[in-house]
Amino acid sequence: MAALDRLTECLSKLPGIGRRSAERMAVRLVAEPDGVLRELRAALDEAAATVRCCARCGGITTADRDPCRLCSSGDRADGTLCIVEQPNDILLIERSGGYRGRYHALHGKISPGRGEGPDALRIETLLRRVRAEGFTEAILALSTDMEGEATAGYLAELLRKEGLRVSRLAHGLPAGSGIVYSDPVTLARAIQGRVEA
Amino acid sequence: MAALDRLTECLSKLPGIGRRSAERMAVRLVAEPDGVLRELRAALDEAAATVRCCARCGGITTADRDPCRLCSSGDRADGTLCIVEQPNDILLIERSGGYRGRYHALHGKISPGRGEGPDALRIETLLRRVRAEGFTEAILALSTDMEGEATAGYLAELLRKEGLRVSRLAHGLPAGSGIVYSDPVTLARAIQGRVEA
Repeated sequence: MAALDRLTECLSKLPGIGRRSAERMAVRLVAEPDGVLRELRAALDEAAATVRCCARCGGITTADRDPCRLCSSGDRADGTLCIVEQPNDILLIERSGGYRGRYHALHGKISPGRGEGPDALRIETLLRRVRAEGFTEAILALSTDMEGEATAGYLAELLRKEGLRVSRLAHGLPAGSGIVYSDPVTLARAIQGRVEA
Repeated sequence: MAALDRLTECLSKLPGIGRRSAERMAVRLVAEPDGVLRELRAALDEAAATVRCCARCGGITTADRDPCRLCSSGDRADGTLCIVEQPNDILLIERSGGYRGRYHALHGKISPGRGEGPDALRIETLLRRVRAEGFTEAILALSTDMEGEATAGYLAELLRKEGLRVSRLAHGLPAGSGIVYSDPVTLARAIQGRVEA
């Protein structure tokens, strides 16, 4: 069943999808060739035709709007740049309502294990923007895993050399949770980063 | 971003995929329109053209082989029918090496919460097969969650009326789970130790 294997292989390349989930998805798709498979093909065609990544920030935009709404808005704070890994991180931060500046999506993180160094990321574009758009502060909103930490360390050094103030998201307890649910590393960081009550 | 929303919506219909995973997958796809998106479209086209569900057992087969390899093989025990929910459950049981009879995939389970009664399943085909192919034993290899138990209870009654001996997989499967999460050894033992339903 080579075609099923290829579909499984392809789905398992998507973020968060392991081999067995991919197989389950593939089988569901072929079990309903006139249902969800046809629907997915149409949705992919439509998305390929109309959705793009913004050439400036790397976030999601439509084919007829590049730079994107967030890059071209006159209503955002110009001095601050929030750097994220993936385009959908921008959507999540926008929904939080906690940020009003500009964005830059790297499309990945430094991952020596998978042979992905800084060259695979949108860092050249980042430096070009930093020089052209006059940012004074960069916020690194990256993963707190080892690869995210390595990427943050690399970028912090690079951006400080460009004269920017560089900060990172606070580590701490999630809202609506208690210390009983927290792991030791998070807890240690929350104590370190304590704020006046 | 209507196209992105539709793609997300479509992916979230696949088994095991929640809203946020679907969004992450959709964004990754549109972020690489010439990479993984194009690849997935090609894989879907190929699968749609070449992969089918076997009209007899409901398992996966190729367009040029219906009934499937397992249904048409002379090398399988003819008296025993193993009834599963999804086509990929057949692949998992085959990999376990613990079973040599025939299969029947229901393509679902009774799920009153989602408005899916017995009519939505391949039960009519099942009864036709039971009468035509002379099975003497049915093994119900269904999920151990409430919907799977309800389906098993319903089928056990139905199949006993047809004169079949009906058994279910032995415990070994964790409660509230399905065979899709089980490893081959556990699965083989569960088949061996099946008990009267």
